[in-house]
Amino acid sequence: MKGLFITFEGGEGAGKTSIIEEINQTLTDKGYKTVKTREPGGIKISEKIRQVILDRSHTEMDARTEALLYAAARRQHLVEKVIPKLKEGYIILCDRFIDSSLVYQGYARGLGIDEVYHINQFAIQDCMPDVTFLLDLPPKKGLERIHGNYEREQNRLDLEDLSFHQKVYEGYHLLANRFSDRIKLIDAGQSFDRVLNSSLNAIEAFLK
Amino acid sequence: MKGLFITFEGGEGAGKTSIIEEINQTLTDKGYKTVKTREPGGIKISEKIRQVILDRSHTEMDARTEALLYAAARRQHLVEKVIPKLKEGYIILCDRFIDSSLVYQGYARGLGIDEVYHINQFAIQDCMPDVTFLLDLPPKKGLERIHGNYEREQNRLDLEDLSFHQKVYEGYHLLANRFSDRIKLIDAGQSFDRVLNSSLNAIEAFLK
Repeated sequence: MKGLFITFEGGEGAGKTSIIEEINQTLTDKGYKTVKTREPGGIKISEKIRQVILDRSHTEMDARTEALLYAAARRQHLVEKVIPKLKEGYIILCDRFIDSSLVYQGYARGLGIDEVYHINQFAIQDCMPDVTFLLDLPPKKGLERIHGNYEREQNRLDLEDLSFHQKVYEGYHLLANRFSDRIKLIDAGQSFDRVLNSSLNAIEAFLK
Repeated sequence: MKGLFITFEGGEGAGKTSIIEEINQTLTDKGYKTVKTREPGGIKISEKIRQVILDRSHTEMDARTEALLYAAARRQHLVEKVIPKLKEGYIILCDRFIDSSLVYQGYARGLGIDEVYHINQFAIQDCMPDVTFLLDLPPKKGLERIHGNYEREQNRLDLEDLSFHQKVYEGYHLLANRFSDRIKLIDAGQSFDRVLNSSLNAIEAFLK
């Protein structure tokens, strides 16, 4: 693959969306070909799967059903959008990927990181990100940011209680240790410009 | 679990539907509590997943996405319907289950039986059938039966060519060898009454 596959992870309110937007702008200005995406990424089949996952009437949804659906949506987004663009040499900036499933379903919902890793390997067949930025912010701060932002639509996960978000935070740190070569921890409590510069420096090291 | 979990497998036109109908009737007449079901089994979430799988406009559906979706639908049907009824002591008569995925996606579509088995184990957590009846019929005969039956609506799999159905046939025989304790091979080329009696004798051996 000629391109570069970058994913962004972090709890609610860590600032992934704004950072990805700015990184995308900076790289485009420098002449790089980029794709900014997030699962389900506008892929028809993945959008349909996403509707099943997020339907608020599906209160009986089992955690394993949910994990398999995320893996299915991930697979389709990967083969239809990410891999073709990587082959064409694009830099992919993807908001959430496999680590979100490992943390949210595997760790916070208690299915087990290894088990969820396994079904995701079936889905992605070793097409792991070249680098993952983990925007690190204690959940209390993240939730304060969200609640101060009235333009942001609340989703199902925003409604979980603080202890769930605390587990997500712990889970990400476990992953950062386990995949220390791939995951770069970035202190998201810093100023926006500092977060941006740390990320851009790391990306430029890859591009050289 | 107090009940008995029975699944029925076989290629297109092997006669699963008619046999299950008749077995259900016979067992009910004898006073047993039975549940006749098939995935997605009227489970709301599984029906929604099924719609995504079978939508004819989804021509870009990847085989791994499909396998993950079947596993997700299976999971939800199992936890919402099969397991609760097994706990109440019912005999479950289920048209297709894990073996269909192993054969159709794992073997015939070439994803690998072991790989597909793995994601299905995540879905079913060792809740395997007590006994599985494999209605064994060479695909040429099965397809002749289907094409002679104008009331039967053709589905996506009926449209596959003979070589695909031949692979399904081979795949089922591989499974019958591998899971010889669980899978009972029944010659579906016999008369209907003989197929019925063979199945009922085997079920009664379990019920004693």
